Amino acid sequence: MRDIAQFILSSIDKISIDQVRQSVDLLINAYKNKKLVLVMGAGRSGLVGRAFAMRLMHLGYTVHVLGDTIAPPVRENDVVVAISGSGRTKLIVTAAEAAKTVGAKILAITSYPESPLAKISDVIVVVPGRTKISTEEDYFARQILGIHEPLAPLGTLFEDTAMVFLDGLVVELMARLKLTEMDLSRRHANIEF
Amino acid sequence: MRDIAQFILSSIDKISIDQVRQSVDLLINAYKNKKLVLVMGAGRSGLVGRAFAMRLMHLGYTVHVLGDTIAPPVRENDVVVAISGSGRTKLIVTAAEAAKTVGAKILAITSYPESPLAKISDVIVVVPGRTKISTEEDYFARQILGIHEPLAPLGTLFEDTAMVFLDGLVVELMARLKLTEMDLSRRHANIEF
Amino acid sequence: MRDIAQFILSSIDKISIDQVRQSVDLLINAYKNKKLVLVMGAGRSGLVGRAFAMRLMHLGYTVHVLGDTIAPPVRENDVVVAISGSGRTKLIVTAAEAAKTVGAKILAITSYPESPLAKISDVIVVVPGRTKISTEEDYFARQILGIHEPLAPLGTLFEDTAMVFLDGLVVELMARLKLTEMDLSRRHANIEF
Amino acid sequence: MRDIAQFILSSIDKISIDQVRQSVDLLINAYKNKKLVLVMGAGRSGLVGRAFAMRLMHLGYTVHVLGDTIAPPVRENDVVVAISGSGRTKLIVTAAEAAKTVGAKILAITSYPESPLAKISDVIVVVPGRTKISTEEDYFARQILGIHEPLAPLGTLFEDTAMVFLDGLVVELMARLKLTEMDLSRRHANIEF
Repeated sequence: MRDIAQFILSSIDKISIDQVRQSVDLLINAYKNKKLVLVMGAGRSGLVGRAFAMRLMHLGYTVHVLGDTIAPPVRENDVVVAISGSGRTKLIVTAAEAAKTVGAKILAITSYPESPLAKISDVIVVVPGRTKISTEEDYFARQILGIHEPLAPLGTLFEDTAMVFLDGLVVELMARLKLTEMDLSRRHANIEF
Repeated sequence: MRDIAQFILSSIDKISIDQVRQSVDLLINAYKNKKLVLVMGAGRSGLVGRAFAMRLMHLGYTVHVLGDTIAPPVRENDVVVAISGSGRTKLIVTAAEAAKTVGAKILAITSYPESPLAKISDVIVVVPGRTKISTEEDYFARQILGIHEPLAPLGTLFEDTAMVFLDGLVVELMARLKLTEMDLSRRHANIEF
Repeated sequence: MRDIAQFILSSIDKISIDQVRQSVDLLINAYKNKKLVLVMGAGRSGLVGRAFAMRLMHLGYTVHVLGDTIAPPVRENDVVVAISGSGRTKLIVTAAEAAKTVGAKILAITSYPESPLAKISDVIVVVPGRTKISTEEDYFARQILGIHEPLAPLGTLFEDTAMVFLDGLVVELMARLKLTEMDLSRRHANIEF
Repeated sequence: MRDIAQFILSSIDKISIDQVRQSVDLLINAYKNKKLVLVMGAGRSGLVGRAFAMRLMHLGYTVHVLGDTIAPPVRENDVVVAISGSGRTKLIVTAAEAAKTVGAKILAITSYPESPLAKISDVIVVVPGRTKISTEEDYFARQILGIHEPLAPLGTLFEDTAMVFLDGLVVELMARLKLTEMDLSRRHANIEF
């Protein structure tokens, strides 16, 4: 747990302030122009996206998640938030391309600025992670070094860092939109599951 | 397949016109007063509810499904559509009760007009089904009679009948709201999963 | 409601017995060889797929739904059940293609035997529906003819017919696998939502 | 983002090693005895639970999530992981009680050791968070102090800390079960959404 928390903390300095500013501006514009935000991600990245989408709803956004029952059409200047550590998840790239053809703006959260997803996006935020699978050699090297604990597996570091990054973004959006926690609380589900 | 289709067809005459009228009125009012509709059901009944919720969205309703990522708070005079063959599914009764305490109107789709769900509902539509599990004796009796095909199992007849009933309701709502298929199509997701 | 039920009933004779037999054989083989079944569909077709997947679980299958939290890898000779009225839903065709590259068998439920989905499938069952959107002219023609009720909109007829068809298939699988309703009931969730 | 990451890091020393040990033992036993693990949580806590459930699947567990399409019955000695910051989420307490009546073991992840959920649980891990809504006074006090940034709203701190805690638990389970990242990777979905 300590390793993961330290990784998240050390990631902060690697995230570009400029990219964060662009993503905040994109989301503030969507709010002011009452544009739809559609969040998408596969697997655990999709869950991180859903957690972000819930908070956007609490902030007063019209927001939906790809894969939910209720998903209205995406139109020009709507914002698609696509989360993929590798930036290569096929269904996400396919869906982002489809959104682009109707004129939506794509905001990518990814570790790879050269990935197919990043390349078709209007704004990207590069969030560190270790999305590549470590080789068996890495694993045995660690054993030789007496490191018996395996690393946080697969996309864990990206997913947890993206979760905390997006929750930080929510705080920034609250400040920019002058919303208090009371405002969020009023929009929180009272019957949930 | 024929048995199920025949069951659905024969159910039509058993559904009370008066109950249908009340449910249509409740939903038309929700539309005109821009009230939220929250759909809920467990298991396969929940899926039937989701299919109905999608069509309500296509009709222009603000509609959500309990269990989806995005679920706003329920307020006074919002409409909860609760689907349960037995009317006893504990989580659905619990959620409907919670909705009632904030002043929402409950519309129950159930086979049992005396069930806990029906009793707390403002409007009910009794949709036939065989939600009770047939006993082993039933099963062996059928074998003795040379009926080798098992019956449609568990809640199948209720679920399929409720699905077709609710799709019929959608057609009625379209007519009442003077909406064409084009109107629905314009609200259909263009990127879906 | 009557129109939809009649449509389902009249569809029965249009479904090829030979295609049904092939699909039953494919699913019986998957059961006997303990192969995974992965069900996929977009929008309301996806909900019909989920309802079918629940019953396959009750029958004792190892079954998963694309989009659910828990979705294990697909391997050679696993069975993918892909449901799409038009057979052209991009994400479904993409996912079915991905499954094909790892050697899975594709069973398509579609109205269009010449569609991209049907073409890459190992077994198809053509289920009637009206997946094409009726034109405004159709609509006004109906008005001129004094038909004020709109047609069941969009994919409704395909979805409802596919639901009843797949529930009929479940009855057939029960008979072939010599399972009683009690067997299904024992595998039914006792805590569900 | 820094505040949240610091909060997570500082939480580590507040989590009881003894409680962690009990939760690991419970999960290792479930693995060895091939017991089902059912994960449940409402709202964002539910998403954190789903992310944990995915990793349990990668580790080789038979794991399901309450609310997913496929959810088999819970039986004696199965493990229910219930996540609720407040420990008072009504539907989660109801579902945990239902699981207890069939003899399942309840593992609660909560900030409140005296909550209704904690009281019916066999093992609890107290994970720090601020699940209580800060008052308007708190908010204005911060403004007077010149703190213009609002706090991370609502359950954010609990949810993010629980996410990182559970991912740390996964690393511990990997070590105890002598599984490498390759083992996990082999069980990762190859077609996901």
